[in-house]
Amino acid sequence: MQKKQIDIRLSQLKSAMNDSDIAVYIIPMNDYHGSEYIGEHFKLIRYFSGFTGSAGTLIVTQEESYLWTDGRYFLQAGQQLSGTGIKLQKMGEKDVPTISEFVLSYFEKKGIREQMAVGFDGRLMSVSFADKLEGLRIVSDKDLAGDIWNFDEENRRPDFPMQPVWRLDTAYTGVSATEKLSQLRADMKKEGADVFLLSTLDDIAWLTNLRGSDIAYNPVFLSYMIITGDRAVLYRDIEEEEICFYLEVCGIEVRPYGDFYKDIAQIPENMSVWIDAESASRRMAEAIPSGCKKLVGSNPIMLRKAIKNETEAEHIRNAHIKDGVAVTKFLYWLKTNVRSRKEYATEISAAEKLIQFRGQQEHYLGESFAPIVAFADHGAIVHYSANEATDTELKPESFLLVDTGGHYLEGTTDITRTIVMGALTDAQKRHYTAVLQGNLRLANAYFKKGLTGANLDYLAREPLYRQGLDFNHGTGHGVGYLLNVHEGPNAFRMRQDAKGMFEAGMVTSDEPGFYPEGQYGIRLENLILCREAEKTEYGQFLCFETLTMVPFDPEAIDIQMFTEEDKKLLNAYHRKVYEAIADKLTVSEREWLSQVTAPI
Amino acid sequence: MQKKQIDIRLSQLKSAMNDSDIAVYIIPMNDYHGSEYIGEHFKLIRYFSGFTGSAGTLIVTQEESYLWTDGRYFLQAGQQLSGTGIKLQKMGEKDVPTISEFVLSYFEKKGIREQMAVGFDGRLMSVSFADKLEGLRIVSDKDLAGDIWNFDEENRRPDFPMQPVWRLDTAYTGVSATEKLSQLRADMKKEGADVFLLSTLDDIAWLTNLRGSDIAYNPVFLSYMIITGDRAVLYRDIEEEEICFYLEVCGIEVRPYGDFYKDIAQIPENMSVWIDAESASRRMAEAIPSGCKKLVGSNPIMLRKAIKNETEAEHIRNAHIKDGVAVTKFLYWLKTNVRSRKEYATEISAAEKLIQFRGQQEHYLGESFAPIVAFADHGAIVHYSANEATDTELKPESFLLVDTGGHYLEGTTDITRTIVMGALTDAQKRHYTAVLQGNLRLANAYFKKGLTGANLDYLAREPLYRQGLDFNHGTGHGVGYLLNVHEGPNAFRMRQDAKGMFEAGMVTSDEPGFYPEGQYGIRLENLILCREAEKTEYGQFLCFETLTMVPFDPEAIDIQMFTEEDKKLLNAYHRKVYEAIADKLTVSEREWLSQVTAPI
Repeated sequence: MQKKQIDIRLSQLKSAMNDSDIAVYIIPMNDYHGSEYIGEHFKLIRYFSGFTGSAGTLIVTQEESYLWTDGRYFLQAGQQLSGTGIKLQKMGEKDVPTISEFVLSYFEKKGIREQMAVGFDGRLMSVSFADKLEGLRIVSDKDLAGDIWNFDEENRRPDFPMQPVWRLDTAYTGVSATEKLSQLRADMKKEGADVFLLSTLDDIAWLTNLRGSDIAYNPVFLSYMIITGDRAVLYRDIEEEEICFYLEVCGIEVRPYGDFYKDIAQIPENMSVWIDAESASRRMAEAIPSGCKKLVGSNPIMLRKAIKNETEAEHIRNAHIKDGVAVTKFLYWLKTNVRSRKEYATEISAAEKLIQFRGQQEHYLGESFAPIVAFADHGAIVHYSANEATDTELKPESFLLVDTGGHYLEGTTDITRTIVMGALTDAQKRHYTAVLQGNLRLANAYFKKGLTGANLDYLAREPLYRQGLDFNHGTGHGVGYLLNVHEGPNAFRMRQDAKGMFEAGMVTSDEPGFYPEGQYGIRLENLILCREAEKTEYGQFLCFETLTMVPFDPEAIDIQMFTEEDKKLLNAYHRKVYEAIADKLTVSEREWLSQVTAPI
Repeated sequence: MQKKQIDIRLSQLKSAMNDSDIAVYIIPMNDYHGSEYIGEHFKLIRYFSGFTGSAGTLIVTQEESYLWTDGRYFLQAGQQLSGTGIKLQKMGEKDVPTISEFVLSYFEKKGIREQMAVGFDGRLMSVSFADKLEGLRIVSDKDLAGDIWNFDEENRRPDFPMQPVWRLDTAYTGVSATEKLSQLRADMKKEGADVFLLSTLDDIAWLTNLRGSDIAYNPVFLSYMIITGDRAVLYRDIEEEEICFYLEVCGIEVRPYGDFYKDIAQIPENMSVWIDAESASRRMAEAIPSGCKKLVGSNPIMLRKAIKNETEAEHIRNAHIKDGVAVTKFLYWLKTNVRSRKEYATEISAAEKLIQFRGQQEHYLGESFAPIVAFADHGAIVHYSANEATDTELKPESFLLVDTGGHYLEGTTDITRTIVMGALTDAQKRHYTAVLQGNLRLANAYFKKGLTGANLDYLAREPLYRQGLDFNHGTGHGVGYLLNVHEGPNAFRMRQDAKGMFEAGMVTSDEPGFYPEGQYGIRLENLILCREAEKTEYGQFLCFETLTMVPFDPEAIDIQMFTEEDKKLLNAYHRKVYEAIADKLTVSEREWLSQVTAPI
């Protein structure tokens, strides 16, 4: 992008700010729903700064503009902002203020707290962030940035995404939308809420048993909901007659997407209105009539959605068998055709090959996130995504890291394998083995209900710790059922409160890794399903069932490092993989699988 | 105690409440310093209810009185309150409100929020608790309950405890009081605090390098401190000339204990005053002039005190060798004299015998907490403390659980051993072995700085979990240096925030257990010192050094359950114990030690 274009756009914005007595304008990287991936229509930061990363906040003042982003994007943002005059604020670095600290001190220093306001589009800003600006005058009902883009004829703003909506049968969801609505109403009653406002897209998709494709990789559709004791309204312009009929049967009214905020303002006084502190937008909180009681709590759907029912669990097992077949075929192809140089392949072409294998599976619907296929030193870049400039040939050396996933009618997968492409050093084997030990041991946890991922995370890291090593990302995240590949509240990370307690039915990724800078990356990821184990007088015990059905690479294992228990865990897993997928492979693939899954 | 006496006392209190328009009066189990053990002078709950447990809150209204206590005391409180009319509120049980919920709903139901107040002695009530009563009128400057006891001529209130204060030499503390004051002032400067108010007794003892004996088991003295950039005032009536002189040299002024609250009120306006949210009393917070800025944060001394310096660490090692000699002599005596019935012993006489062995050690100063010597089924009662009524003979059967500790000039110890007194069942061995595995594996943790006890706790519980078992207490607590046997912020428990991060120099107990109801109790407790391990490009790694030097009981180990790693850990520990204490034992004791510490 041209520096000049950005200059013009920022000048237009500053002029609009001036007209509205706004001293500081904040553009968050967000849509109206707190989505992890945002559609093209919402990429305001790219339009105003040229920065294309997935996380950041742009702050514009009359004097200067600033982009806050995190460690993943320091390098990229530095390059993309170069020449624009926009200053990079490296989050988490010493002496870099937080956004709210910066904004508060800006007003403090200039002594303009009385005359001027801080501005942002209230639909793009979370309640919790806006609360941090307490004491300032806030203008949140103007979309200054969006309006400028809307009128740009040279660089047309992408349309507001409204793709077809479709229905996921109860044969897959296990529970009907009607029943889910009843559960929600029971939760509301328990909390004393008359009205529940819902804006998170995966929760709406889960609650209605509908799916869409408005957002890349997430099978959701832009919409809001307002639920009361006797009404449920879906805000979405739905054209499909069949869906309209289905919703009517479910007792869900349909109203235009644009009416959501207006309707909030019509909630009768004295009602208590429940919003989710994490995801609700500032505009939602503002729209609630002042005579209502606001209940700002956590979203009850998150937990219900995370706990997969028996029907979902059984489908998910099948999805992983299909995904396992596809990925195992891919591994065989890599080992026999690419490593041997019979076939030329690059990171991008390999990713396409894997999509082909997945596409051969019944009910495959698409990728569940942007694939990471990272060869050799590219693997050390945790959020690497190959593009034309970086794409590289897969040679018979080092490791290839492949982190991909698919959506099926039967659920969502997410798997990482690190494949030996050539001769390894002892250090490479030590590193791979430690990561594998961490993966196997975490999946083997056995514990009493009440624990969170924070209590178990050490199991995945200990083998690395003992070598003085570590990795700089969480060990695992919750995964949706034909929904977002990242969902809460379950996760493996250092600190978690009671909300993150494991329950039977939760699906979580188990993905330790190791990334020596400039050399290679190792990550091994399986999805694991939390299950009830025995119940004794001391409590309900839980364990994990590994869902992913793809072999690890025995070539990379330093067997000396394995304890007897490690050997048992690996052999049991490999036996299970073989039994699950062998009969769905060709003879030569099966022969190969039998070798790599042979007991060690 | 007579029901009649309690009736009279409660009537007097209700009458005094009436005179002050107080509808609900709260008596917490506390002294003015948030101490874990409180002196006889402060046992108001015992005086007004007959309940002698160590945790509880008494609530008096005109109609009814209520005692809140936790699971440890349900049985005891039920018995002691019987006939008094005081209702037992079992904390944590279903439908039992919290104290603040109860008080708020009492005012709500009676509709007396405007006319009547809730009352308590503000010196006995934490700021954080009082905050939960927001919306009510609070009377906190009257000690209605204490005044009644003060004028009771039949049941004289015990004197306010003021025992001699003595000085712990810098040869033991490693750091002078002057230097500690400078550190505190640096912490204050960093937080922007002009004044620091200190009321926690172990923090004052640590800061001044003074010790006392006003409170059972805790070598501390009742006092307060106010510290500013250039003044430090100790509120305590000190008579010892030597101590007065020492304090003068340290730049610490001495003023009467009773002047503390008056002096807070004299803090100049516009100063920022730092108090600790957890320990500061409501009265302290109220006394701060309204023109001051209150900084309610966590107490910086807690962390500094928890991190033992090199001098302290070296002394602590020696304290544990002496303590190890005493406890090992005791174990030998149990095994050879008591188990063989050569000598008659009971729980109480055995506790006295152990005090004798500790008393033979140089610089022994006394017990660090009330000893738990619990034979057979008594061991299953986690907070059992033998008294004349329960004391029982130690017979050649089952387990004896011994949880005791000592204070030495060189530090504070806390150790639990469970001793085989007769033939064991297979289940008993399985249980002992699981507890021992938990103890050994937790002490063997190796991790990157940033972890808390919540991240490691699983290591201690996993062997029990795998048998469907668990124990219902924390796995470990911080231990002071010749100070309180329980101190923060380090601990092993399920949930901890970043404040509980391990740092090199912290001493923590490692004490998993198992308690089958009505049968026996097993607990194995060592103290472990957090130490720096290697530092790599991935971070500073930490490990633990076991301080306690007493063998485990090989008779109780089911060797089939041990992994190779478990064997290594036990053998290494036993070798270390033998090397540390063997030459301080008699020939026959040494011979015995050599047998029990022989490699398995």
